[in-house]
Amino acid sequence: MNNVELAVHFFFQIAVILLACRFVGLIARRLGQPQVVAEMITGVLLGPSFFGLFWPEWQEWVFPWDPSQSTRDTQSYLFPASQLGLALYMFVVGMEFRLEVVRRHFASSVAVSVAGMLAPFVLGAGLAWWLFTYTELFPEKTTLFEAALFLGASMCITAFPMLARIIHFKGLAGSRMGTVAIGAGAIDDATAWCLLALVLASFDGNVSNAAYNIGGAVLFIALMMLLVRPLLSRLERYLIDRNERLSETGLVVGLAVMALGAWFTDAIGLHAVFGAFLAGASIKRGPMTRDIIRRIQPLTVALLLPLFFTFSGLNTQIGMLNSAFLWGVCGLILLAAILGKGVACWLAARATGLPHKEALGIGALMNSRGLMELIIINIGLQRGIISGEIFATLVIMAVVTTLMASPIFDALKLSKQVVADAANDYV
Amino acid sequence: MNNVELAVHFFFQIAVILLACRFVGLIARRLGQPQVVAEMITGVLLGPSFFGLFWPEWQEWVFPWDPSQSTRDTQSYLFPASQLGLALYMFVVGMEFRLEVVRRHFASSVAVSVAGMLAPFVLGAGLAWWLFTYTELFPEKTTLFEAALFLGASMCITAFPMLARIIHFKGLAGSRMGTVAIGAGAIDDATAWCLLALVLASFDGNVSNAAYNIGGAVLFIALMMLLVRPLLSRLERYLIDRNERLSETGLVVGLAVMALGAWFTDAIGLHAVFGAFLAGASIKRGPMTRDIIRRIQPLTVALLLPLFFTFSGLNTQIGMLNSAFLWGVCGLILLAAILGKGVACWLAARATGLPHKEALGIGALMNSRGLMELIIINIGLQRGIISGEIFATLVIMAVVTTLMASPIFDALKLSKQVVADAANDYV
Repeated sequence: MNNVELAVHFFFQIAVILLACRFVGLIARRLGQPQVVAEMITGVLLGPSFFGLFWPEWQEWVFPWDPSQSTRDTQSYLFPASQLGLALYMFVVGMEFRLEVVRRHFASSVAVSVAGMLAPFVLGAGLAWWLFTYTELFPEKTTLFEAALFLGASMCITAFPMLARIIHFKGLAGSRMGTVAIGAGAIDDATAWCLLALVLASFDGNVSNAAYNIGGAVLFIALMMLLVRPLLSRLERYLIDRNERLSETGLVVGLAVMALGAWFTDAIGLHAVFGAFLAGASIKRGPMTRDIIRRIQPLTVALLLPLFFTFSGLNTQIGMLNSAFLWGVCGLILLAAILGKGVACWLAARATGLPHKEALGIGALMNSRGLMELIIINIGLQRGIISGEIFATLVIMAVVTTLMASPIFDALKLSKQVVADAANDYV
Repeated sequence: MNNVELAVHFFFQIAVILLACRFVGLIARRLGQPQVVAEMITGVLLGPSFFGLFWPEWQEWVFPWDPSQSTRDTQSYLFPASQLGLALYMFVVGMEFRLEVVRRHFASSVAVSVAGMLAPFVLGAGLAWWLFTYTELFPEKTTLFEAALFLGASMCITAFPMLARIIHFKGLAGSRMGTVAIGAGAIDDATAWCLLALVLASFDGNVSNAAYNIGGAVLFIALMMLLVRPLLSRLERYLIDRNERLSETGLVVGLAVMALGAWFTDAIGLHAVFGAFLAGASIKRGPMTRDIIRRIQPLTVALLLPLFFTFSGLNTQIGMLNSAFLWGVCGLILLAAILGKGVACWLAARATGLPHKEALGIGALMNSRGLMELIIINIGLQRGIISGEIFATLVIMAVVTTLMASPIFDALKLSKQVVADAANDYV
C-alpha cells in the first residue's frame, strides 16, 4: 500500500474501531461496566485473539499488519498516532496530578500506599524470579533484575486518573477516605513509573547508558520544575485574557511543551509518556490547565485513545497462552495482582481505621489497573523486556482487575452508576 | 528509521511545527495578519523552499522525506495525520455550512456568486488552455478538459469558513450585506468542489470509472441526506441529555459518520474531504453540532491543521519557479485570481446596490483563498493533475490573496482586529 491508500484505509479503520468500541460499550454499560473496560476489551477483540482468529482474511484486510515492518502497513501510522494520543492523555493526567494532596494526611496516605506497593511489588518480583528461573517466558536479553523490577512495577500500578475522578464524583475529595486514597494512589503510581524508568535505563545494558538515561531524567525533571514551571507561571498572564480564558497561543504553548517533553524523555531512552506527564505537571493548576484539559481531552479520549487500545490489541495474542501451564501462570499473576494490591490496600485501609465498606471500596479502586497498566506493558513489549506470552497475561490481568471494580462497588451499594460515569469521563 | 524512532521524531517535529507557526504568527499579528496566514507561510518555510534551501542537512534531519516512498519517513504518518486533520476540519465546516441562507436574498446572492464564479472560472480555464497548449507545465496524463476544469475550480474557491466567521463577528450575519456574502461564498465553494469532483472523476481516464465515481457520489449524497440525516435527527434525543449536553456516545457517533463518509468518498475515487464535509452537513444544526464542534475544533485547529500546512509546505518547491517565464506565469495566475474573484465580486456587489466600502470588503473576503485553496491544490498535486511548478504558483496565489484581505479591511477602517481574530478562531 502506498501512503494514499493507507490514508484512505485509516478512515475505514477509525470507523470500525469507534463503532466496535461503542457496540461493546453498550453491552458493558448494561453490565454496569465503564466504557474504558469496553475499549480495552474491544482492542483485544479486534486483534489476532478474536477477529484475526475467526476471520483472518478480513482482519488482514482491515488491519494490514507486518510484524517485520518491511512494508508500509497499519503500524506505520497507528503507532505514531497512538503515541500522540497517549502523550496527550498523560499530559492531561499530569495537569490533574497533585502530589501535594499527600501532605494533608501524610501518615495514613503513606501507610496505605506502602502496603499497597510493597505487597504487589514483592509478589510480582517473586513471580518474575520464578518465571525467569524455571521458564523461558522472558526474552533472552532481559536480566533477572529487569524482569523482577518490571513485573513488580506493573503490579504496583493503579488506574490513578480513574480513581481520582471517582473520588471527586462521589464528593469524597475533601474527606479523609478520599484524601488517603488519592494520596496513596499518587505515591504508588509515581513509584511504579520510577521503577519503570529504572528498568528502561538499565535495559540498554551498559552502565554509561544507564547513567545517561538517569542523568537525563534528573536533568529533565530539574529543568521542568525549576525552569519551565516558573516560566510558564510567569507567561500565564499573557496567555489568559480578561475573562480568564486561555488564548489559542496558550494552548499551543502547552502542546509544544508537551511535545518537547515527550521527545526529550523518548530521546534519553525513557518513554514519551514520562515527558508528557511531567510537562502537564509543570503547568500551575488554574485557568490554563483547566482550559487546556477542556480543549484537548474530548478528541483525545474519543478518537486517539481507541487507536491506542487497538494498537495494543493488535499486539495481544491470547492464543499464545496455549497450554494449561501458561494459563496457570496467568492465574498466578492475576492472583498476585489482586492479593498484592486489592487485598493489601483493603487491609491497610482497615488498619488505619477506615470502616469496612470504604476500605473494601479503596481496595477495589487501587486494584483496578485501567489504561495505565496497558501503557506500562506496551512499553515493556515494545522494548522487548517482556515476551508476547507475558504481555497477553498482563493484558488479561489489566482487564480483569478493572472489570472487578464495578461489581464490588455494586455489592457495597456505593452507587454503581457513579463509578461507571466517572470512569467514562476520564477513561 | 523504524516505527519507534519515527514516533520519537514525530514529537520533535510537532514541537518544531507548533513553535515555528507561533513565531511567524507573532510577526504576522504585528502586521495585522491572522494566524492562518502565518501557518500557510510557516508550512512553506519549513519545506524545501526555505529551511531545506539554506540548511538542507538540518531539514533532512528534522523532516526525513523520501519522495519515492520506498523507506519509512515523515510522510508515512504526516500524511494520514494531516488527512485526519483535514477531514475533521471539513467536518466542522460542513456542520457550520448552511445553503439555506441563500434563500433569504436569493437574487442578490446568486448574482454576486455567479459573477464571482464565472469570471475566475473563465480566466482560470483560459489560462489553463494557454498553459496546456504552449507550455509543458501540466503533467502528461492530464487532459485539457481536466486542466481547465481544475484551474478554473481552484480560482473559484473562497475561504468560506473564514468569511462566515468574519461576518458573524462583525454582527453582519442578519444584514443584507452579510447574507449576500455568505450566500455567494457558499454557492461558489459548493460549485468549486463539484468541479473538483468532476475532475477527479474524469481523471481515471475511462468512462466506466467516471460513471462509477459520479454514480457513487450521487448515491452517497442521497444516502447522507435521505437516510443518515433523518436517522441522526431521530437519534439525537438519545444522544443529548436533559441539559442539552451531547453524550460521549454522541460525539463518537458523529466521528464514526465522519470517518465512514471520508472513507467512502475516498474509496469511490473522490477525496475524503467531500465525505467529511457532507457528514458534517448531514447533522441537524443544534446542540449536537454545537457540542461536536466545541469538542473537536480546538485540537484540530491547534495541532492537526499545522501538520497539514507542513505537509503541504514540504511539497512546495518555490525554487522550481526558476525562470522569468515561470514567475510571469505565476504573476498571470495571481492577476487572474484577483481580477476574477476580488474585482468581479466587488463590481457585482456594487451593481446589486451595496455601498462602495462594503462592496470592496466583500471583494476582499471573497478573494481570500485561505486554507480551502491549499486543500484543493494538495488534492490536485497528490493525484498528479498538476505539476510541482503549478502547485508552487497556486500556493503563492493562496498566500497572497489571503494576505491581501487584512490590509484592505484596514484601509476601509473596518476594524482590522476583528478580521484577524475571526480568522484566528476558525483558520
